[in-house]
Amino acid sequence: MPTISIKGKNMPESPIRKLVPYAEDAKKRGIEVFHLNIGQPDIKTPDVALQAIKNNTIEVLAYSRSEGSEEYRQKLANYYGKHAISVTSQDIIITTGGSEALLFAMGSVCDYGDEIIIPEPFYANYNGFSTASGVNIVPVISKIEDNFALPPIEEFEKLISSKTKAILICNPGNPTGYLYSKEEIQKLATIVKKHNLFLIADEVYREFVYDNVQHQSVLSDFGLENHAIIIDSVSKRYSMCGARIGCLVSKNKEVISTALKFAQARLSPPTFAQIASEAALETPQSYFDEVTVEYKARRDVLISELSNIEGVKVGYPKGAFYCVVELPVDNADKFAQWLLEDFNLNNQTIMVAPAAGFYSTEGFGTKQIRIAYVLKKEDLITSVNILKVALTTYNKR
Amino acid sequence: MPTISIKGKNMPESPIRKLVPYAEDAKKRGIEVFHLNIGQPDIKTPDVALQAIKNNTIEVLAYSRSEGSEEYRQKLANYYGKHAISVTSQDIIITTGGSEALLFAMGSVCDYGDEIIIPEPFYANYNGFSTASGVNIVPVISKIEDNFALPPIEEFEKLISSKTKAILICNPGNPTGYLYSKEEIQKLATIVKKHNLFLIADEVYREFVYDNVQHQSVLSDFGLENHAIIIDSVSKRYSMCGARIGCLVSKNKEVISTALKFAQARLSPPTFAQIASEAALETPQSYFDEVTVEYKARRDVLISELSNIEGVKVGYPKGAFYCVVELPVDNADKFAQWLLEDFNLNNQTIMVAPAAGFYSTEGFGTKQIRIAYVLKKEDLITSVNILKVALTTYNKR
Repeated sequence: MPTISIKGKNMPESPIRKLVPYAEDAKKRGIEVFHLNIGQPDIKTPDVALQAIKNNTIEVLAYSRSEGSEEYRQKLANYYGKHAISVTSQDIIITTGGSEALLFAMGSVCDYGDEIIIPEPFYANYNGFSTASGVNIVPVISKIEDNFALPPIEEFEKLISSKTKAILICNPGNPTGYLYSKEEIQKLATIVKKHNLFLIADEVYREFVYDNVQHQSVLSDFGLENHAIIIDSVSKRYSMCGARIGCLVSKNKEVISTALKFAQARLSPPTFAQIASEAALETPQSYFDEVTVEYKARRDVLISELSNIEGVKVGYPKGAFYCVVELPVDNADKFAQWLLEDFNLNNQTIMVAPAAGFYSTEGFGTKQIRIAYVLKKEDLITSVNILKVALTTYNKR
Repeated sequence: MPTISIKGKNMPESPIRKLVPYAEDAKKRGIEVFHLNIGQPDIKTPDVALQAIKNNTIEVLAYSRSEGSEEYRQKLANYYGKHAISVTSQDIIITTGGSEALLFAMGSVCDYGDEIIIPEPFYANYNGFSTASGVNIVPVISKIEDNFALPPIEEFEKLISSKTKAILICNPGNPTGYLYSKEEIQKLATIVKKHNLFLIADEVYREFVYDNVQHQSVLSDFGLENHAIIIDSVSKRYSMCGARIGCLVSKNKEVISTALKFAQARLSPPTFAQIASEAALETPQSYFDEVTVEYKARRDVLISELSNIEGVKVGYPKGAFYCVVELPVDNADKFAQWLLEDFNLNNQTIMVAPAAGFYSTEGFGTKQIRIAYVLKKEDLITSVNILKVALTTYNKR
């Protein structure tokens, strides 16, 4: 019998995946499950994108260019221009989702055994991409008490070694919803320039910011032309998660020419999804305004309802559509399973994502869950009430 | 200035890419360029696949399952059953093209520094995937004089070390067009069982076999349930290169559960392309019959025309739509560039792929080119005539 690689054995399993059978079981028992566990928006995909697919006139579904079509990249550059990010089509490589952009970025800047510093908690799949790339994640802890603000820059300094190649942030953050301020990005800019590091910023939630605060991109006026790499995606922006179109953006020519070699090896990004993504750029501003109003309302009702539960702490989200919640339980993993396996309130229960999977430090986040507020307000109110009753029942067992 | 990784620097460039500017330049000078350099078929995508896209009723373009939709995988299992490959949906993971299936396979069976033995010449992008995965390719030479048949199995034995994890074949072969016989697969089966290796078979050209010879899959009756991993793709089968849908197939449960973790990290394969690929399974047999008749006719005319050029050797292709041609020139790379830069016959010229990029051994294949017979017969005849005149002119300079 041939053997699986250590790399393969070390690939993490999705922190939600192991709960799926319990959720399916609950549904079989007639229980309605509210999914607070996944960042799949219920928002409709813009009609202009869906119509472009229906109206396509392709006869031979051929390879596109490895870096994506010139037309789409030019329109994207124009989109970035409107967001204070001055780039040309030459600074953009279209990828198969933000996922592939992350893989290309890691491969372009890191060799086997190199390190990337990431504030934790962070998007769980960074663990998978780093394992696949042979890169070690060095976490720097951000705290729920600070709403997961940027940790003191000295904490980063302490962790920088000869193996450190980049700092990776997600802004606004999944799972924290934290939005970095101009001052925070400035601090990161100073440290990456001082130590000759890359600053990789996952900005896929750029449009999802509330309270009239402006998103600060690493490619705005921070002088990071040689250092910054943006990871982007159409998945959340246009509720097009299934398209699998993202991009890597950098003004560093060597980064682009290197990432292009990774892109050439896999030939091209998906053609139909590129058509939809190009058309999606025509989405009217009113779509985003409505979506933002909706998410802000959802956030407000969620945070307000959560604050009524004793012993619960929340990191206040200023962007994206997630928050991390600390619960008065010993082990959020077991609690999440119990919610599906042993609990219901009037034949309803909730599925949440245990937050330990969003940390790479063993033992961190064990009392925390991530809630994605991708459900309508009434369902969020019902869900938080289920959580409240469940916590009391759980702790009285 | 931060630095690019050694891995990134080592990523190979596409062997064709550097000729592209010369081809574009030639076109600007009014010269018609026949593209024999790329495996992009001119065959129409089956209507049933294109219609499925136009008729889709998606409102929220959501993530699909990481392993691909259950319906598609079940139908695929049924397709394999008709090709003497007995598998269930549980043995299949849908990937973003055959490219991603290769990355998942390499990551699942190899750690950094492990080795995979591949008969060369081989599909050039195996170099890129192995560099990206930190895997070393150990080539075993196959010869044009033997039509690129399987090298003697003792040659494989000599190369197997403690780091060897797999043998990788492409069957029928890109760039050689060689189709392995039952006896050859049997020999490979014996050696991988003896040494506890995986046998990874890239079978994306399964349908493209001529002369009434039957394709032999590694998952047919060779007793390789624990060893075999099939890499597959819809790209060539349905002329759907731009879809980016492939799959990884294995009866080895550990391979599937490991590859699934790689699949989960990148969330899901593209949704629209999955819809088209599922519908493509309804393509009538007449489509394949017509395509095969067309390619066989193209092959026959190509080989016949090439045999009229003095000093030219061809590996006789029994499948796929490529052949490797050895030319009476010192350096096929320079000749290919010269064809675009300095030569034309009645304002026409050809673009070919220098074959050195299909070898990993330095200095091999320098006199060879790959020709993709994806053009109609008249154009192939014109192309070979251009080649003939060009060779005479080139060698008289």
